[in-house]
Amino acid sequence: MTQVFVIPSTAVIGEFRPDLVAAHTVPTDQPFLVETRDALDGAVIHGLTERPRVARPNPATGPIAIAGARPGQALAVDVLAIDVAEEGYLTRTPAPTFIPQRGGLVEFVHGLRLPLAPMIGTIGVAPTEGVHSTKVPGRHGGNLDTRDVAPGAALYLRVGQPGALLALGDVHSLQADGESSGQGIETAARVLLRARLLEDSLSEWPCLVRDGELMVLVSAETLDEAAREATEEMARLIVERSALSPDEARMLLGLVGDLRIGQVVNPLKTVRVAVPLEAVPWSAPLPL
Amino acid sequence: MTQVFVIPSTAVIGEFRPDLVAAHTVPTDQPFLVETRDALDGAVIHGLTERPRVARPNPATGPIAIAGARPGQALAVDVLAIDVAEEGYLTRTPAPTFIPQRGGLVEFVHGLRLPLAPMIGTIGVAPTEGVHSTKVPGRHGGNLDTRDVAPGAALYLRVGQPGALLALGDVHSLQADGESSGQGIETAARVLLRARLLEDSLSEWPCLVRDGELMVLVSAETLDEAAREATEEMARLIVERSALSPDEARMLLGLVGDLRIGQVVNPLKTVRVAVPLEAVPWSAPLPL
Repeated sequence: MTQVFVIPSTAVIGEFRPDLVAAHTVPTDQPFLVETRDALDGAVIHGLTERPRVARPNPATGPIAIAGARPGQALAVDVLAIDVAEEGYLTRTPAPTFIPQRGGLVEFVHGLRLPLAPMIGTIGVAPTEGVHSTKVPGRHGGNLDTRDVAPGAALYLRVGQPGALLALGDVHSLQADGESSGQGIETAARVLLRARLLEDSLSEWPCLVRDGELMVLVSAETLDEAAREATEEMARLIVERSALSPDEARMLLGLVGDLRIGQVVNPLKTVRVAVPLEAVPWSAPLPL
Repeated sequence: MTQVFVIPSTAVIGEFRPDLVAAHTVPTDQPFLVETRDALDGAVIHGLTERPRVARPNPATGPIAIAGARPGQALAVDVLAIDVAEEGYLTRTPAPTFIPQRGGLVEFVHGLRLPLAPMIGTIGVAPTEGVHSTKVPGRHGGNLDTRDVAPGAALYLRVGQPGALLALGDVHSLQADGESSGQGIETAARVLLRARLLEDSLSEWPCLVRDGELMVLVSAETLDEAAREATEEMARLIVERSALSPDEARMLLGLVGDLRIGQVVNPLKTVRVAVPLEAVPWSAPLPL
């Protein structure tokens, strides 16, 4: 029987920063379970008629040191499963509305039932430099609010500090591409993960593999800028690892490299470009 | 045996404008076949080493009057099938590259085979006002370059002039969301369509139904602006036709209203918001 490490949500961070100090340490290649608080840190209470003010939104459980992680490596985080609480909430309908979550469904207003699709909103590592609120996305990960950070995905983050110092929270039971309202269904959760370390980090931006697609997640001031930089970064990655020329790589992306919107609200905006792994004639298998 | 009207690509337009004059007339509710030229109007020739200059890019076959169409109605265009030519092309790899298209596959460079997914790049009607090049998208349709304008889709365009005056071209054999390189695989094609007229036009922007999703397609100077306006327009449409309040409609869109990028290059940018029809508690069936 494999031991599963359980990381409680007692220690949380509000900023990803270079000088984080580990609250826990987990080994690689073994599942560990992370308990996460909801995005408003439990401040939404039944009967509340206004959105509460919260001292520390998006509390991220951690920092979790990954044993042996060194700067420059890639930390691969396999998302194995997400169990959400029995109730989530939305704050702007216009009063806080509690959303029952069971049987694979969430119950929205007017009796409308929608299928659960849990995902991790905020997940990142200690950066090489700079202080990044857990409300903001960036090269270190952070508040990516990208719905493919979900069971079945592997997320790749470049390690910036010894031990990587992973933290995560802000789980959504359901969120569309764009998160145009500024919210998914916000919920506490238990997230089963596994960490792996790779010598070859693909990109300085977060990468994701899910359903046979490779994605690069870029965040910038505007969607246009994020889309442009994500395309350039994926083209660079393809040119580096295949026989395609820069022009050929760009043409290929015009054909099979979907530009998808993660979120438009954080306030940096996140766009991912997604390419079927089998649509690129890689020179060697990617280190995934 | 149903007669199929065939519209040859001899008459084409380079601009959608209020004073278009019909070159053909078709009845509603019957299939008609439209032959379309490729986006560079046949100017790419084997052996060419540079992208040619083209007098009229994106020639759109038409104008095709729809019998009985009146301003204010919606013209529903059912896309029944698209047959592409035996060869398409890309112009920037860096010289024009011809792409064999057969057996459901296109053959990209380096022997890479990709599945065909034909779509209509440019399709629109005579606008109420303004002159719109067939290279530009807008409320009248135009160069939407949105890959869901494909077999199985119904496209809804508000009729601006008597007869609607439909025109289409710029078919792509394959194009990703974003069309980040500025090109899909460009091809001549034969497009089988059917026109319907509806008294209740959903939106002043093009709408699309495909695979059980309703989409609104908005084009604007920036992706951010297009995403914002598409979200607002879909929220308006939901509020108008359901019991949801504006806040509830916006929250629902944050959960199930995917923001998707059509194209980033035309030079107005096209974003669609897509909602599963069954995720909205409509007050009455939509007129689709």
